[in-house]
Parts: sequence; C-alpha cells; structure tokens
Amino acid sequence: MRKTLLFVFLYVFLISGTCLAQTGQVLVSSSLAGTAHPSPYNLYGATYPRIEADSRVTFRFEAPDAQKVQVAIANVPFDMVKGEDGVWTYTSEPQDKGYHNYWMIVDGAIVIDPATNAFIGYSHMCNGFEIPDPEGGFYDLKDVPHGQVLIENYFSKVTESWRHIFVYTPPGYETNPLTRYPVLYLQHGGGEDERVWIEMGRTNLILDNLIAEGKAKPFIVVMETSAAYKPGELPPQPFRPRPAGERQAGQDEQPAPRPRFRFTFDTYKEVMVNDLIPFIDARFRTLSDQPNRAMSGLSMGGMVTRQVTLANIDKFAYIGLFSGGSISMDDVNKAPGFKEKVKLVFVSYGSRELENRRMGFGGDPKANTEALKEAGISSHFYVSPLTAHEWQSWRRSLYEFAPLLFQ
Amino acid sequence: MRKTLLFVFLYVFLISGTCLAQTGQVLVSSSLAGTAHPSPYNLYGATYPRIEADSRVTFRFEAPDAQKVQVAIANVPFDMVKGEDGVWTYTSEPQDKGYHNYWMIVDGAIVIDPATNAFIGYSHMCNGFEIPDPEGGFYDLKDVPHGQVLIENYFSKVTESWRHIFVYTPPGYETNPLTRYPVLYLQHGGGEDERVWIEMGRTNLILDNLIAEGKAKPFIVVMETSAAYKPGELPPQPFRPRPAGERQAGQDEQPAPRPRFRFTFDTYKEVMVNDLIPFIDARFRTLSDQPNRAMSGLSMGGMVTRQVTLANIDKFAYIGLFSGGSISMDDVNKAPGFKEKVKLVFVSYGSRELENRRMGFGGDPKANTEALKEAGISSHFYVSPLTAHEWQSWRRSLYEFAPLLFQ
Repeated sequence: MRKTLLFVFLYVFLISGTCLAQTGQVLVSSSLAGTAHPSPYNLYGATYPRIEADSRVTFRFEAPDAQKVQVAIANVPFDMVKGEDGVWTYTSEPQDKGYHNYWMIVDGAIVIDPATNAFIGYSHMCNGFEIPDPEGGFYDLKDVPHGQVLIENYFSKVTESWRHIFVYTPPGYETNPLTRYPVLYLQHGGGEDERVWIEMGRTNLILDNLIAEGKAKPFIVVMETSAAYKPGELPPQPFRPRPAGERQAGQDEQPAPRPRFRFTFDTYKEVMVNDLIPFIDARFRTLSDQPNRAMSGLSMGGMVTRQVTLANIDKFAYIGLFSGGSISMDDVNKAPGFKEKVKLVFVSYGSRELENRRMGFGGDPKANTEALKEAGISSHFYVSPLTAHEWQSWRRSLYEFAPLLFQ
Repeated sequence: MRKTLLFVFLYVFLISGTCLAQTGQVLVSSSLAGTAHPSPYNLYGATYPRIEADSRVTFRFEAPDAQKVQVAIANVPFDMVKGEDGVWTYTSEPQDKGYHNYWMIVDGAIVIDPATNAFIGYSHMCNGFEIPDPEGGFYDLKDVPHGQVLIENYFSKVTESWRHIFVYTPPGYETNPLTRYPVLYLQHGGGEDERVWIEMGRTNLILDNLIAEGKAKPFIVVMETSAAYKPGELPPQPFRPRPAGERQAGQDEQPAPRPRFRFTFDTYKEVMVNDLIPFIDARFRTLSDQPNRAMSGLSMGGMVTRQVTLANIDKFAYIGLFSGGSISMDDVNKAPGFKEKVKLVFVSYGSRELENRRMGFGGDPKANTEALKEAGISSHFYVSPLTAHEWQSWRRSLYEFAPLLFQ
C-alpha cells in the first residue's frame, strides 16, 4: 500500500512543477524570436500553445466528446479541427509581438485551458501566450540590480474593507535606509485588476532595466484596483463571461453596445486620496510632495487617471494615459493650477488603435497633445508600432514614460 | 463612434474588477461560517460557486450545447444537471472546512471555470472554493502589524536559469534595519509550485497573527519550487491533465499507479545549498547559522524536506513534515550529528488521512515520532481534526509548527 502511494505521489510530481509562475516572473525572452517554442506561460511539460518561428501559434486541446471547439484569441473565436485521436488543433495567422489573451470555447461554454497559467482580462480568467519581440529586451529578466515587488494589504475607511496592492521598490531601496523616493500610481484597464501590471506588464523588469542603464530615476510604483465600492453601493452587474462570437474572425469593429450605465470613479478617487496615498506615504520612504507623485493607467485606467489627477492637481505632477484618452485644453482650463503645477502629460496608443480610430475619450489625442504643447505645457505623444489595444502597447508606453518622470 | 466605444469600455469595466486577487490576499473570513455566500475566490459579481449555510456547495455552469458536464471536487467528478436554460447545476454534500480545488469536465475535457480565480494544483490550473472554519481566525486578515510578501528572482548556477521565489519578512523587518532574523524554508506539494503557501496556505497572515499574539518569534519564510533541472535533464513527462474519473465519487482509494519512475530531489538539494540559501543570506538580514534555519514542506514537500535536511544536518535545526512522511530512528542513525544538532522534528497529518491509512513514506508517523522522543530528540506529532490531504491540514500544521521554531 505504501509503495502504491509512493508511486502515485511521484507521478503527481512528475507531471508537475511549473518552471514558472504568475506575478511577473515568467521568463519571456526576446532571444526566442524566430524559433518555434512552447509559450512561456505553459505549465511545465506543456508544449502547446506552440509559438511558431513565423509568429503563428498552434493550439492543441483534448476534448474527445465535444461537437465543436474554438479558440478565442483576444476575444475573436476561431474554429479548431478535430483529429482522429479526439484532439482538436488550430494554427493561427501570424500574431503581433507581445502578450495576447486567449481562451477555449467547448460546445458553447467559455472555459480556460488548464495546461497554461491563467490571467485576469476581459472580466474573467483567461489563458495567455507570448510572441517574442526582438526589441523586447527592455522587459527581459536580466543580470542587473533588481528592485522588489511587494504584496500589501491596507484597510480603506472609504470602502470599509481591506484592499490588496502590489508595490515595486527600486534597487537600492533596501540598502539605503535614509533615501526617500518619488511614487508612480499605475492603473490597470477594464476587466482587469491590480495584478496585471506585474504579470503581463512586467513593470518591475522594465524599471530595473531602465534604472540599470541610467535612463530612469529610481522610483516606487503602486498598483491598485480602481474597483472600489462603499458599503451599500451595489455590485454593478452580475458576473457573466461575454458571449462568444460577439466579434467574428477578421472583423475589426466592436460589438453593439450593451445597455447604458452611468459610472464614475468617485469612490476610487476618495480611496486614493484618503486611504491609499496616506498608507503608502506611511509604509514606504516616499517623497510625498506634489512634484514627486505621478499617475498613469492603461485604457480604462487612463480614464481613472484623468479623473483623479484633474481633480487633484495639488497632488500629481505627472500624468500618463496609455490607450486611454487624452487631455484637452478644455480640461486644462477647468483645472486651476494645471499650467503651473503639471510637469508632464504623456499620451500613447498602439498604431493599430489609431488605424482603427479606436482612440477613446476626450477628442483626438495627437491634436490635444499638440494644443497643450503650444500652450507651454510639457506634453508627449507616443505611438507603439504595429501593436493593438493590448499589452505590448502598454509595456512600450511605460518604457517611454518612465524616463520622463521626476527629472 | 466615440460614444459607442465609451459604452463598450464602461460595460467591460462594469462586469469587471475582481474585488480580490491571487497571491495570498483573498479575504477568507471565518465569520462567514453558517451563512450562505459566494465563494471568496469568485471574480467580482460571480455568485457561484455558492457556499451554503450547511457547508454544501452549489455550482452553476453555462454550457448550452454540451452533452455532459461534471464538476470535479478534489479530483472526484460529480454529474451536473442541465436546466432548460442551458445552465448546469449541482449541489454537493457538506464539504470539510478550508480550501478545496475543483474544476469542470465539459464533454470529456478538463477545463477551468473562468468566473473564479485559478490556482495551481494536481499538476494543472484549478479553480478553488473555501468553506469557512469558525476556528479559522488564525488565517484571517486582521488589524495587526503585517509583514511583507516579496516576489524575488535569483539566478541559479546549478540549473543555469533564473528561479522565482516568494519571501515573507515579519512585521518590524523594515523598521529595524539592524535586526537579523531566522529563516524557514517552506516547500509546496506535488503538482504545485512556489505560489501555494501564500495563495492557499496564507502563510503571511498565519505568521502575522501568531507574532501579534506573541505566540511565535518573528522569522523570514522562503517559498521556492522543488522542480529543478540541470541543462540536459529532460522534463520528466509531457504535460497532460489527469484523466477524469480515475477516482469515482465516494471512493476513497487512490487510482492504480502509473508507470514507475526513479526520482530524487538531488538537483533541488544542490540548488538550495549552493544558490538559494546564499542568495537569501546576502539579500536579507538573516541569522545564517544552523540553529536559526528550519525547513518544512507539505506532502511531496515533506519528502523534499527529509532528503535535504537529513543530508545537511549542519545547516538545519528544525524539520517539519506535513502530511509527508516522518523520520525514523533508522534515518537518525544514518545522519551523523542528528541527535546533537536537530532541535525539533514536527510531523503532522489530517485525521482523515490517518483513517484512510494514507501516511506516506518512512513508516508509521506516530510510532516514529514516539521513538525519537524516547531517544531524547524533541519531536512533535499533530493531527488536524476532520481534514484530509488538503490545505486546511497544512494551514493548521503551520500554525502548530511556527510557535515551536527558534525558541
């Protein structure tokens, strides 16, 4: 009996042991570009999804009794083909560089492949794969001094609940106990949460590498979720994965809008000002004055950043909007002190977003940025080449934004 | 167009925003015992799985076109029933207290429910649910001083690769820059990795609470994966989720063993001694002598702990085996210096494991512990009431083990 158990245990181990893990540490090496290899998010021993040398992706999924299996890549479903062995396969068109969410649709059910790590996105858990970028060395894990990523909880009096955050402290923070650092507050997008800027964004590695090259000043980064509700504020909508097939393969347009909702980030604004910033300034060695605080976010996080910073010009000197709108002269004129106090407005998009006219809130972003520049406000517009409303645009945006901070 | 996009963005956000996240910070409150509530690992707005007041669990899964849907709870599949709306439901028998893995089986495919967080277990990603324990306050997030959980990468010369770890530093570590601390190395089980002792084990909260009550000394905890391979050491087995139905509902016996493998933890032993321990002692303010180093692990992690500590008595003073075998007088006699240098051998099991005679390696654990005691070795045997080879046994084991360390 004991021997039987031994072999069971061993077997369980043998097919086990992910050589990677979530929360920002998966090895995504730009050096894999141009070679066929398993996606780096696969669990140990899982060879699919396989990234082909030409950036196509081969998926393989075992579902012997299913009638129909699809793989949805960034919310676009593609039919898989069943083999005689009950295994479904599909090879995609070449994919853009960087991280992409995917999931499976088995006989109409949206499900996750258990053979690869799971990530938050599209308001539900997703799988992910990664196309290497020959110029992606800036987010590789390298032999340079590494900062630390900390997991923290703090109690918010506004929401009357504990809240969960990730904090990056730069290399040297530990060994220079008298030094204080500026702080960037960095927001996720819609359908995501505070995990993503580490897990997919690779914030810690991007900053480690920039600091090692002397291109960015060392600063602290705080990653929080903008989902914040006071007691009695109802959850806005019961959870339901988006129905498959809202977008069809090859279709670039968005699906028809759902029913309208009125929504603001007022509660999160209160959380930040009353609870989060005081917690960070007490728990970490920060420089806590306005010139040493920045805020930025991706997509919906850009919208949050706009709302919070425009209402608190006395607290934020640097504003970054990644695929999430821009700031117009109208906004500037409505925010007293903006011209004097704001040191930088940074706006960015993936080039494919601009092609698709997917430019978000607040008017044409390039024109807005130019108008601010003409009015004497330091403003910066960046376009990520050949990337869409996805993570590669935002990794590159952070890489462009960070060197401009706290100079 | 812009308005359409606005509503799409808003909708995506509205069904989004998990109010919780992975990596140890999900609110699992013992105060929910005896009330029906959504499992705490559900994404924001997801009401299922629902924990019933009597500890049964109701599952709900949308798969309109599927012919058969099962939910596997801790690897035992149960048939769900299809409603007229295409939604499958199942209500379980009352479940033991604590965390349980589950997954879905849709027309024969093992898949993950996208509506709840995903965790590593059983060698693939799983979903999880949590039955509150009225006596589980020891792992609740409370208003006490909190230590920090850090995510670190270090380079192993043995495996010639970067390795990913979690490190807990106790409250006060930050504010007492001259104080040095003992270290516990804490290992996961088979089919898991370095994430689990934070995500399911709640190590940081258990230690925060024990330290706040003065029941445990402050110490550092290091969580690593024991999957370690040198270049050229082949992955032991290609990834494949375990076929469903190996165990049937109500069956307590394990499935028949898979083909035999010869396996040791020799590479991990080298990694720990040559790379991990030196990294930790350089990066953190540790007490690095033998009396200030402990090692423990759950299940297969107990096996790893036995192998590493018995071969390195000069490095470890405290040994903990949770549901993972025990140490016999034979072992002691083969390890020179054991009697003089080892300060504690701690062995624990869930009571249901002992009922099922699932006692792992190295002989009867209670008899072995008694024999060590008679030989003058400090040894401790703990049984977790009414829990199986699952997380509640291991949370309680850590809670019992930690106060005995470094006294």
